[in-house]
Amino acid sequence: MPTHSENELIERIRRAIPSSPHKAAAGARVGIGDDAAVVRPRLGRELVISTDQFHDGRHFLVQRHSPDSVGYKVLARSSSDLAAMGATPLYFFLNLALPAARAGAWLDRFLRGMARAARQFKMVLLGGDLASLPTVAISLAVMGDIAPGRAVTRSGARPGDAIFVSGTLGSAALGLEMFLHRGRRAVQGSVRVSGAAADALRAHLYPQPRLGLGQWLVQNRLASSMIDVSDGFSTDLAHLCTASGVGAKIKSASVPVTRMTALTKKLALDPFTLAMHGGEDYELLFTVPARMVARMPTRFGNLALTRIGEITRSRKLLLLSSSGTARPLAIHGWNHFRRNYR
Amino acid sequence: MPTHSENELIERIRRAIPSSPHKAAAGARVGIGDDAAVVRPRLGRELVISTDQFHDGRHFLVQRHSPDSVGYKVLARSSSDLAAMGATPLYFFLNLALPAARAGAWLDRFLRGMARAARQFKMVLLGGDLASLPTVAISLAVMGDIAPGRAVTRSGARPGDAIFVSGTLGSAALGLEMFLHRGRRAVQGSVRVSGAAADALRAHLYPQPRLGLGQWLVQNRLASSMIDVSDGFSTDLAHLCTASGVGAKIKSASVPVTRMTALTKKLALDPFTLAMHGGEDYELLFTVPARMVARMPTRFGNLALTRIGEITRSRKLLLLSSSGTARPLAIHGWNHFRRNYR
Repeated sequence: MPTHSENELIERIRRAIPSSPHKAAAGARVGIGDDAAVVRPRLGRELVISTDQFHDGRHFLVQRHSPDSVGYKVLARSSSDLAAMGATPLYFFLNLALPAARAGAWLDRFLRGMARAARQFKMVLLGGDLASLPTVAISLAVMGDIAPGRAVTRSGARPGDAIFVSGTLGSAALGLEMFLHRGRRAVQGSVRVSGAAADALRAHLYPQPRLGLGQWLVQNRLASSMIDVSDGFSTDLAHLCTASGVGAKIKSASVPVTRMTALTKKLALDPFTLAMHGGEDYELLFTVPARMVARMPTRFGNLALTRIGEITRSRKLLLLSSSGTARPLAIHGWNHFRRNYR
Repeated sequence: MPTHSENELIERIRRAIPSSPHKAAAGARVGIGDDAAVVRPRLGRELVISTDQFHDGRHFLVQRHSPDSVGYKVLARSSSDLAAMGATPLYFFLNLALPAARAGAWLDRFLRGMARAARQFKMVLLGGDLASLPTVAISLAVMGDIAPGRAVTRSGARPGDAIFVSGTLGSAALGLEMFLHRGRRAVQGSVRVSGAAADALRAHLYPQPRLGLGQWLVQNRLASSMIDVSDGFSTDLAHLCTASGVGAKIKSASVPVTRMTALTKKLALDPFTLAMHGGEDYELLFTVPARMVARMPTRFGNLALTRIGEITRSRKLLLLSSSGTARPLAIHGWNHFRRNYR
C-alpha cells in the first residue's frame, strides 16, 4: 500500500484541478498553500456560499461508483445550491479524507471528474484540507456571487404565483435503480444502454446543475422563489412552501415525468412516483408571479421549462388529476438523516 | 435509539449557536434554511476563507474527549487559520455527520462548546449540512474579512527578518500526553490538576486562536509573514520558510518552552522536543522586518511575544545553542496523512 505525503497530494490536486494562488481575473488573491484563501469580491456584488458533505455508503458507494463520477457529482451537487439562488459560481474548497489505498489511481480518477466539472461550471479550487481515514469522506464549500438583493430564496412564493420546473423529474432516481440492479458493467460505457436508459444513468452519475437557468431567471427578475430538486420533488416543494408560508396545487398531467425504460417495467417502478419522490434530479423548482408568466419561454436552450401548478393561500400540497379531483401530495423524499443508501 | 428528523436537528443547532438568517450587522442577508447563504461584504474589504475537517479517531476520540471540548476545539482550530492571516472572523458553516446515538445529549454538549467558541470569536453560523453516519465526521468552513492587500501570507519572510512566536510551545502536546495517560477523570474538571498541568490540558482541550494578535499585527503592519503553529513548530517553520524561499536560525535558549509537570518527568518527556515538534499549539509564528523590531512589544495583553531567531538567505533551518554552535533543526511534525492519533 503506497503512502503519500500531504505535500505530494496537494501538488497532485493543484495540478489536476483548475486552481491558482493568484487568479486575479476571478478576484482570488491567495489560494492553495497558505493558511487561508483571500478573495476580493467584485464591486457591489454579494457572495453566495453553500457547503455539502458526501460519505461512502451514504451518498455514493466507493466500491461501485466510478471515481470519475464521484468527483464530478459532488461538485455538481454543491453547485446546484448556487444555481438555486441564481448565483454565478466562482470558487470551491475541498476537504477530502481517504484511505492510503485510495490515494493513488482512485484519487487521480476522482480528480479528473472533479476537474471536468470545475471547468464546465467555471470554478476555481482555492483550498481545502486532507486527512487519512479508513473511509472516503468528502466535504465541499462552494462560493459564487450575485447582484445585491437579487438572490432568489425559498421564501418569496406568493398565492397565485405559477410553479415551474426545469427538465424532467425522476430520471436520477430511475438511474440509481438501474445502477443498483444492472451493476457495474452497464455504467462503464454507454454501449449497453441508450436512449431513455442512458439519460437516466447519466442523470444519476453526472447530474447537471442548472447554473445558466438560475442566472437567467435572476437577470430577468422572473422568479419569486426557487429551490433545487435534491431531496425529491415532494420534499423540496414542501420546503419551499413552508419557507414561504403558502401551499401548492400541482397538475399531475403536467409533471414532466422521466420516460419509461425496459427496467421501469421489469422492476414495476412507477415513473410518476419516481418523479414525485425520487431525489437528486438537481432541476430547478421555481415560482413566477402571474403577471410575469407571459414572459416565460417553454425552453431555456435545450432545457424544457414546464408550468406544473400554482401557489395557494391554503397551506396544503394538492395533486390535481386531469378530471379535476384533488388529493393530498404525500411527502416522501430523501432524508439523509433517516434513510440509508439502498 | 432515538431518531431525529433533519428539521428538528437544524432547529436545535439554530437555537444553540449564534446564527441568524438576517444578521444585518455582520452583512449576512440569508442564513440557515435556504439553499445557500448570502453575505454582503463590507465595502472595500477582502474575504478570507479556510476549511478544515475533524474525524473521530483521527483528530479527536469520541469515546474519550468531552463533546464540549470537541465542539469548542474544532471552531478554535479553524479560526486559527483566520488569525494566521490577520483577518477578523465573521461566519462559519458546519457539515456534521453522526450516528443517531450521538444526536441526543452528545450533540447538545457539542453544540454548547461550539456556541461558546462562536460567541468568544464573534462568529455567526450561516449554514451547513447534516448526515447520518456510523462515525462522527465534522467539516467546517470559516470566513473573515480584512483590509485590501493586508492579509499576511506565509511567503513574505525576507533574510534579516526577526522571528517571533506568541505564548509557549509544546503545551498542547503535553496536554495530549496527559489526557491519554491520566484518562477521563482528570479532564472532567480542574480539581485534580492545577498550575502547569492544568494549563497544558486546557491547551489541548480548549486551544485559544490568537485572533486579536493577528489583527493587531495587520493594523500595525508589523508582520512580513505569518503561520499558525498547528502541525508542530518545526513543520510550520519549514512551511513558512519554503513558501518564502528562505531559511531560519532559531536560538534554542529563547524558545518559550512549556513548563515541566510531574508527568513530563514520569513519562520522560522532553519539553524542548514537545515545543519543537508537538502540534496544535495554535500560537502565531511570524516574522518582523529588522527596522520594525523596535516597535514590537514583549507582550500582547497577557500573551508573551518572544523573539526566537532570524530569517536567513541560506535555506537551512538551524538551531543555535547558547554557546553559539549550530545544528540542523529536524522536521518532525504532525502529518495528518501519515500519522494516526496515538
